Amino acid sequence: MGELRVRSVLVTGANRGIGLGLVQHLLALPNPPEWVFATCRDPKGQRAQKLASKHPNLVIVPLEVTDPASIKAAAASVGERLKGSGLNLLINNAGIAKTNSLDTETLDNMSQLFTTNTIAPLLLGQAFLPLLKKAAQGSPGSGMSCSKAAIVNMSSIGGSIKEMYLWEAAHCVAYRCSKAALNMLTRCQSMGYREHGILCVALHPGWVQTDMGNAAGYTPPLTVDASVGGMLKVLSNLSEKDSGAFLDWEGNVVAW
Amino acid sequence: MGELRVRSVLVTGANRGIGLGLVQHLLALPNPPEWVFATCRDPKGQRAQKLASKHPNLVIVPLEVTDPASIKAAAASVGERLKGSGLNLLINNAGIAKTNSLDTETLDNMSQLFTTNTIAPLLLGQAFLPLLKKAAQGSPGSGMSCSKAAIVNMSSIGGSIKEMYLWEAAHCVAYRCSKAALNMLTRCQSMGYREHGILCVALHPGWVQTDMGNAAGYTPPLTVDASVGGMLKVLSNLSEKDSGAFLDWEGNVVAW
Repeated sequence: MGELRVRSVLVTGANRGIGLGLVQHLLALPNPPEWVFATCRDPKGQRAQKLASKHPNLVIVPLEVTDPASIKAAAASVGERLKGSGLNLLINNAGIAKTNSLDTETLDNMSQLFTTNTIAPLLLGQAFLPLLKKAAQGSPGSGMSCSKAAIVNMSSIGGSIKEMYLWEAAHCVAYRCSKAALNMLTRCQSMGYREHGILCVALHPGWVQTDMGNAAGYTPPLTVDASVGGMLKVLSNLSEKDSGAFLDWEGNVVAW
Repeated sequence: MGELRVRSVLVTGANRGIGLGLVQHLLALPNPPEWVFATCRDPKGQRAQKLASKHPNLVIVPLEVTDPASIKAAAASVGERLKGSGLNLLINNAGIAKTNSLDTETLDNMSQLFTTNTIAPLLLGQAFLPLLKKAAQGSPGSGMSCSKAAIVNMSSIGGSIKEMYLWEAAHCVAYRCSKAALNMLTRCQSMGYREHGILCVALHPGWVQTDMGNAAGYTPPLTVDASVGGMLKVLSNLSEKDSGAFLDWEGNVVAW
């Protein structure tokens, strides 16, 4: 149950909500990372930018996750900063939601959510694979862990096909489908990247007080701090046997 | 364990493989449907067209499932043919696969598979909803069944997040993700359309000797006839309690 210790970490969608909370908690660790890469669509005038002025180990990286060229450019820029060392932890946190019902869902909305919530994490995994492999190879000891090399995909219990969580409150068909697909992607990544020593998990952060969490018209029960604190504790305890799992912020297994 | 009895049915992707097999079996039933609508991308020079020359109850409907306007036109044309009666059974069979690996998957391929395999079944459900509701309202007795009103989504065990079926033989990341998302859509449809009396299920047809099934480079164990015969038997036995289920061609529950 130790603190998460990681040399380098990248968080997408880091300008607000859970992404910003993750960056803040990572910087506040007793042994903070040497490098925290925080990606934002618009790197100017950001809340993350404020943090960067106080933390020399925080690097803001411009990234539009729906644009493959932007992803490649981000990976190249991170690689340069790391000067030959690898990236330990890729946190695919960027995501969007819309409150469409089953009747009002559209092709455009479905496509947009699949692209941001499912396809982007695939492309980010591909682009950062060389850096993740390097981190895995450069880490001492056997077995897998988030301190060595890992991909964390921010999923949601909304993507649990079994649970159909809060259906009556919000259909959000595109969101649910994109997160179910992200869970499948996580399983694919866990199986494909196992040989490289890269651990892959999907996390449900809980129902959190963020712009997205508040959109359903209820006050979510969890603060960003509680969710993020819980998730970082969960990440610090993951090992080989957890790769491919779908866990909540308290470490409980969530049903597919 | 009776034969499937249904007044009207629509099958997408009906020019080959499982779709064509479904149409052939439906026409050969002891009590065949009054209307079998078989949709094809190109309605000319089709194998389905040959069948239509022998079966006056078979109507070929041109449909490109990735085009919302084409879907609306198909629904309007089917509505006209039905002259005020509803559509009992919508079988979303059209689907595509690509054999990309985790490393070679692309944004374009992922988008294409989500659009055809996941989004199209959503849009088809929306477009045919008025006809399905009419069929449910016009059928005697309580409870749900495929003879009254149902949406059948052709899924695959490849979309089972738990099973990761044949991963070593074929990654097919986009296909797996699109089918996992289709399973979620099926659950959404089952919950949203329950109040209208419309049963919704996802089926795994087995690993079948079709162009798609053969693409992995192995000979699949199941003939189209065995798969389709099995699925029609399964459909004939479905009731309210099965809505939202994921079943194989023998009626076994498949894990999400």
